Amino acid sequence: MLSRINLQKSVVSAARQGLKTTRSYSLAATYFPNEPKSPELITDSIPGPKSLASNEELGEVFDNRAAYFVSDYTNSVGNYLSDADGNRLLDVYAQISSIALGYNNPALKETAKSDEMATALINRPALACFPSTDYGKVLKEGILAAAPPGLSKVWTALSGSCANETAFKAAFMYQAAKRRGSMDFTAEELTSVMQNKTPGASDAVILSFEKGFHGRLFGSLSTTRSKAIHKMDIPAFPWPVAPFPKLKYPLDEFKHENLAEEDRCLAELEEIFHSYPKEIAAIIVEPVQSEGGDNHASARYFQGLRDLTMKYEILMIVDEVQTGVAATGKFWAHEHWNLTTPPDMVTFSKKFQAAGFYFRNPDLQPHQPFRQFNTWCGDPSKALIARTIYQEISKNNLVEATAQVGDYLYKGLSEILAKYPTKVKNLRGENFGTFIAWDFIGASERQEFLDSCRAHGINMGGCGDFAVRLRPTLVFEKNHADIFLALTEDIMKKLYT
Amino acid sequence: MLSRINLQKSVVSAARQGLKTTRSYSLAATYFPNEPKSPELITDSIPGPKSLASNEELGEVFDNRAAYFVSDYTNSVGNYLSDADGNRLLDVYAQISSIALGYNNPALKETAKSDEMATALINRPALACFPSTDYGKVLKEGILAAAPPGLSKVWTALSGSCANETAFKAAFMYQAAKRRGSMDFTAEELTSVMQNKTPGASDAVILSFEKGFHGRLFGSLSTTRSKAIHKMDIPAFPWPVAPFPKLKYPLDEFKHENLAEEDRCLAELEEIFHSYPKEIAAIIVEPVQSEGGDNHASARYFQGLRDLTMKYEILMIVDEVQTGVAATGKFWAHEHWNLTTPPDMVTFSKKFQAAGFYFRNPDLQPHQPFRQFNTWCGDPSKALIARTIYQEISKNNLVEATAQVGDYLYKGLSEILAKYPTKVKNLRGENFGTFIAWDFIGASERQEFLDSCRAHGINMGGCGDFAVRLRPTLVFEKNHADIFLALTEDIMKKLYT
Repeated sequence: MLSRINLQKSVVSAARQGLKTTRSYSLAATYFPNEPKSPELITDSIPGPKSLASNEELGEVFDNRAAYFVSDYTNSVGNYLSDADGNRLLDVYAQISSIALGYNNPALKETAKSDEMATALINRPALACFPSTDYGKVLKEGILAAAPPGLSKVWTALSGSCANETAFKAAFMYQAAKRRGSMDFTAEELTSVMQNKTPGASDAVILSFEKGFHGRLFGSLSTTRSKAIHKMDIPAFPWPVAPFPKLKYPLDEFKHENLAEEDRCLAELEEIFHSYPKEIAAIIVEPVQSEGGDNHASARYFQGLRDLTMKYEILMIVDEVQTGVAATGKFWAHEHWNLTTPPDMVTFSKKFQAAGFYFRNPDLQPHQPFRQFNTWCGDPSKALIARTIYQEISKNNLVEATAQVGDYLYKGLSEILAKYPTKVKNLRGENFGTFIAWDFIGASERQEFLDSCRAHGINMGGCGDFAVRLRPTLVFEKNHADIFLALTEDIMKKLYT
Repeated sequence: MLSRINLQKSVVSAARQGLKTTRSYSLAATYFPNEPKSPELITDSIPGPKSLASNEELGEVFDNRAAYFVSDYTNSVGNYLSDADGNRLLDVYAQISSIALGYNNPALKETAKSDEMATALINRPALACFPSTDYGKVLKEGILAAAPPGLSKVWTALSGSCANETAFKAAFMYQAAKRRGSMDFTAEELTSVMQNKTPGASDAVILSFEKGFHGRLFGSLSTTRSKAIHKMDIPAFPWPVAPFPKLKYPLDEFKHENLAEEDRCLAELEEIFHSYPKEIAAIIVEPVQSEGGDNHASARYFQGLRDLTMKYEILMIVDEVQTGVAATGKFWAHEHWNLTTPPDMVTFSKKFQAAGFYFRNPDLQPHQPFRQFNTWCGDPSKALIARTIYQEISKNNLVEATAQVGDYLYKGLSEILAKYPTKVKNLRGENFGTFIAWDFIGASERQEFLDSCRAHGINMGGCGDFAVRLRPTLVFEKNHADIFLALTEDIMKKLYT
């Protein structure tokens, strides 16, 4: 077995060595005694021959053209993802930000093997009509125990897209109910809605932000503004879009410009709120625009958004599908903002495996049953997984651990990337856990770096036009960070010196 | 324990006793040695006190107002659903048509407890980017082995709604690619799509049928035409609707009228196809409009639909979310039609637990990757469940068994309901497996019947305005049918004599 990198060669700076995590033991080592110590590379390139053969076979029946390589999940462990050929890569992408506790986590395995899980899997209930005796308890001990401050109710769904779309539906029904007051539906509403026409079908809108990503079904895709290829040829609602701040880095150097940019965006938003010809039922915003390029904004900006939504009685939906569940060094990224009033709804999926939205006002549950409704209304098997994820995060202080390892990573990357100012820029995500990204000067340079990462045994992802993003698990620790930093340093050197 | 019905009292007619199923043993008895012999009723009413208390607790955190009662899935077995109080009801609703092999089926339990399942559950992959080594095999042995004739590819999703919406997306991208030919996206398309405007965002449409139901997310809900309450206050695309035949029963008596009605509907559809001002990318149709009231049409009508879609180069999507997976006495209900050309896409969910759509033309996979795409692209844990469901259906001939018990049920119901011509009408679903329904003369009579069913230990559901529908599992056998028929006879007598 060949590890292409000699870690001893790499210089881990004194500054980084000086930074300690408070936890004196490695949780990863406890969970994963057999986790590789560094990437294990067997084939000359990735995808190797077994990956290629397996992917070709898959292609006979399933669209396989987005596959980077075929993975062997039984051979994956902790932070290391195995491919079909037995190469094991340090994974800082984690199934597009979806693996919370590492591959083959023993606590999750216990949950997966439990009788409770078998019951949930083989007797999948129509949860709204025939809820199980334990669904309330499972929610309370897991998904709801993790609820953001001030949000006490939840609606469960199946994916980030449908989490956002059910939140949109809640927003439209809420605003309509407020407008309608105690009146019943009118005859005209009842007739017109069957023809998809107003006044029964709403012409209210959801406002989203340039470069935002909120999913790919028809309602969510109408709010997605990341890339043309995500939206091309698909019908979309004529919903409005507002600018999202484009911050300059390093933040310290561009304080004034960035303040002005955020003020400009808030002012443009208020102008839209003030003059838009249709009712704006809600806005949806990500704490960090992830697919759109890891675009951050300040807590002050988000408080500004909250103030404007309150002023205009527009609901604020925070899309935490990618940022949620501890990765940013808070359980929910929007906790970084210290809002004076919590968001109206917060959506989740990915790292929780379960999906849905939290809400604070009970009136966001429509007044009549069967309106926010579908056959399954969630999935108890996923709620069980989410409960274990929450409990492990809580028990092991993975929020703080992620904050700390994130700080360590950020400092290390600052030093490494500072040496290549003509190649990389805009390192971002300071004090934001492991939610770190930076830009290359061009798409081809970005691709070259990602390809080199894979060749060196790191699985990493891009976002936006020029960015690479870190999305490791929550059990990515100092030793993993050291390997990642050493390999990154090595790759940058090879590429640019 | 009190069984409220003395089955000996009930008269099972000679005609029904004469009809035999070919299988000489009871699969249900093999799967479920402890299945109750008849409903077991403990509390004076359902929901009982434990159900009520449990539902109240659930309501603190989850919308519980659609709950009929709280279910104890660990105590449920085969065709009997247990509630929180220990009442065990003969279930002919099966979680809104979603339980294929009965509660706590041992073959599914084995799958649920397997290492393969644990791996799938705790390492949920981003299937399109990092497919697992076994996903192709699991699909081929399960979901794809069950593919309708002529449809060789599949795209996996998570619910009926997103199965339909991903099929819509495939249709829009296919039609756009055909129109665009070898040309690239234009600059105008690339810019306009980011503003949700044409020409980048499509103004093409999906046509659906009056009373159709295709889901509740924004695209699928735009094609849903079942009830105003399903659609009220939600924005909808301005997509067209065509009439669906309203057949008269008994079919034998109304041959001419029904032929004329179907011809009228086909002529109106052709008029829309001919003169609609926008491109119609696809139609979507259910083999039996289920939520809309169990509305059937003849094979000849559906062949007519196929002919028209071929003539106008419009794609035909058959929504088998509720009809699929053996319930109608064919694996796919549209096999009843003997189409000269298979549908372009067939969507599935519910009884398969896994969701998605089959397609026949490889060009329904868009030419570029990452267009039909999302984080998870399905769920391997559900694909494993679907494989077992398919294999058990196949091994145990559950398609034929369901056809036979359906015929038996239909004959029995014909006799019973014939005695109450002023109360019930339009018995339908002959030669359509257990997919049987009939109408009451009014909504209150329908409700009274459903309430009586529950009080007598039958869990049954309604659909449309006046119908009740049978949706038992695929292991609902002659002895279950006898109990159901006897109780139905008893209930009708009590209500109407």
